[in-house]
Amino acid sequence: MPGGRPSGNRAIDERGFHAWLAAHLPAGRRGLLPLGDDAADLCPPPGRVAILTTDALVAGTHFRRGSPPRRIGAAATNVSFSDLAAKGAQPAGILLAVLVPPGTPAGWARALVQGAERAAARWDAHVIGGDTKPGPVPTVVGTAVGWAVPGHLAPRRGARPGDVLVTTGTVGRGGAAAEALRARGERPDVLARLLDVRPRVAAGRVLAPLAHAMIDTSDGLAEAARLLAHSSAVRLEVDERTLPLDPAVRRLPARRRRAAAFFGGDYELLAAVPPDRLPAARRAVGATRTRLTVVGRVARGRGAVLLNSAGARPMPPPGWDPFAAARPRGPTPG
Amino acid sequence: MPGGRPSGNRAIDERGFHAWLAAHLPAGRRGLLPLGDDAADLCPPPGRVAILTTDALVAGTHFRRGSPPRRIGAAATNVSFSDLAAKGAQPAGILLAVLVPPGTPAGWARALVQGAERAAARWDAHVIGGDTKPGPVPTVVGTAVGWAVPGHLAPRRGARPGDVLVTTGTVGRGGAAAEALRARGERPDVLARLLDVRPRVAAGRVLAPLAHAMIDTSDGLAEAARLLAHSSAVRLEVDERTLPLDPAVRRLPARRRRAAAFFGGDYELLAAVPPDRLPAARRAVGATRTRLTVVGRVARGRGAVLLNSAGARPMPPPGWDPFAAARPRGPTPG
Repeated sequence: MPGGRPSGNRAIDERGFHAWLAAHLPAGRRGLLPLGDDAADLCPPPGRVAILTTDALVAGTHFRRGSPPRRIGAAATNVSFSDLAAKGAQPAGILLAVLVPPGTPAGWARALVQGAERAAARWDAHVIGGDTKPGPVPTVVGTAVGWAVPGHLAPRRGARPGDVLVTTGTVGRGGAAAEALRARGERPDVLARLLDVRPRVAAGRVLAPLAHAMIDTSDGLAEAARLLAHSSAVRLEVDERTLPLDPAVRRLPARRRRAAAFFGGDYELLAAVPPDRLPAARRAVGATRTRLTVVGRVARGRGAVLLNSAGARPMPPPGWDPFAAARPRGPTPG
Repeated sequence: MPGGRPSGNRAIDERGFHAWLAAHLPAGRRGLLPLGDDAADLCPPPGRVAILTTDALVAGTHFRRGSPPRRIGAAATNVSFSDLAAKGAQPAGILLAVLVPPGTPAGWARALVQGAERAAARWDAHVIGGDTKPGPVPTVVGTAVGWAVPGHLAPRRGARPGDVLVTTGTVGRGGAAAEALRARGERPDVLARLLDVRPRVAAGRVLAPLAHAMIDTSDGLAEAARLLAHSSAVRLEVDERTLPLDPAVRRLPARRRRAAAFFGGDYELLAAVPPDRLPAARRAVGATRTRLTVVGRVARGRGAVLLNSAGARPMPPPGWDPFAAARPRGPTPG
């Protein structure tokens, strides 16, 4: 009902959700259109381009049905903001399409939106719109918008032979979380993406003007390297001995360490930086209190390889494929 | 596989879909980032604000599993562009998150994107990004972005007493389609939204600077009037005798006519225009070859009423509620 204020326990309905969005969402947002209008507006700062990205999180694949909705909303926001970070963009807003089984308490979707709002607020961004529809399993599709400087977008395809490869943070945080789940007898392919994702927004903003190419490591460093190599039509050589492994990965048995390192779900940045800009990159990223490590180099050729004392080998495949993960459990995991 | 070119019959996978998006999407798009990057960029024209809107279409609720994917993609685009039209915005791009059961042929999602691309091209807009994930039933979430003039956004809450209410096109096109399905023994609540939706982009652009408030009639004129009245804190009086009923509605038995008229799925525009701007609105909308009809007025008070020779009565409820429609069939309609 327009204007109705659904109680948290009442079943969700589309119009009630939209009315709640319109009435309860952030005081911080100062748009020209009120929330809950047909659409939301955002005013780009002068000379900036809009950067947009969309990501879906599905119950049973990316989170459990029982996961706290605030955490799901925060994850949807942070996962999308990680893609913005890889283009050096400043997050401005996020739209959330929430699919839920009929009868889901309205409070579930509201808590999800509030979790997203809290996550967005870390970067002065806001939930700027949303939709809800019935669907067989809870699903949230987040579409984030941010602003970036046109000349400094660090596309995937920009890596050049001679560049050095750098990564923020550590390698294998997602894999270590998956290993911990596995050790408890839980499915490692669920929930690993619902870590406390920390998008590298500040590091991305300072790296983008210095990098020839950049990508986030949402699917792990190996997959990111493969995509960067393919898009840029170059060869990427990652030196396994230099990887800043997550402490939890270092504690694993040696035979499980590599799979954990490249499992995915890290949400760090992998960038190709010309060598003469490396000192500036170190200074700028250091000023954001983010670790930056040289992990390899860009060469002529094709593909991504992993170097160690035994020589070069093809990059291992990613540890996690949502379609493969979803398949064995049939159509309604969760 | 990055760079792989999945055949249309091969099962979909996320990375193959992204690679296909990157390689095959429109020559017409001239962005700073290539398609298939982590994110897409759009450059706003000087002095414009970005307008964003998100909408989900779910198999079994909004379309049938067997519906042609090109048509689903076109509908996702047109439904979102209708919301842009209601703010007077020029469509610029659309992002598509496509959820499909594992094993779905890659060609299905590709055809959906191509249908969206063709629909967007009518307004020189493009598919600018996408994501695919496994989900129990086919679902597409479209997020559209467009550009509008900041002072001319025609918010829902702007209607003022004394304004006249105008609508583009006819009333009941969605309901007439639903009645036709019902007559063939099919569920009227499915597919009716997958009409050949024709968003009123051109009419919206010329009406927005003249209107105090505007909304699209995706849920029918009655629901649009209720939302406009609520948001603007005014009373809306719609004169039933003046409604430009769709010819197919006129042909229905009298007892079914009103339900069809207000069923939903019309995707016209309902605007509140000050009387002194009505001649300009008629001229401007006429120049877009779109019919414009005065259907009522804005008064002091609250709520939306329907006037006819018998007097005023509360606006009838919308004919279609996706949550109610999804409920009786259980969790996996389609």
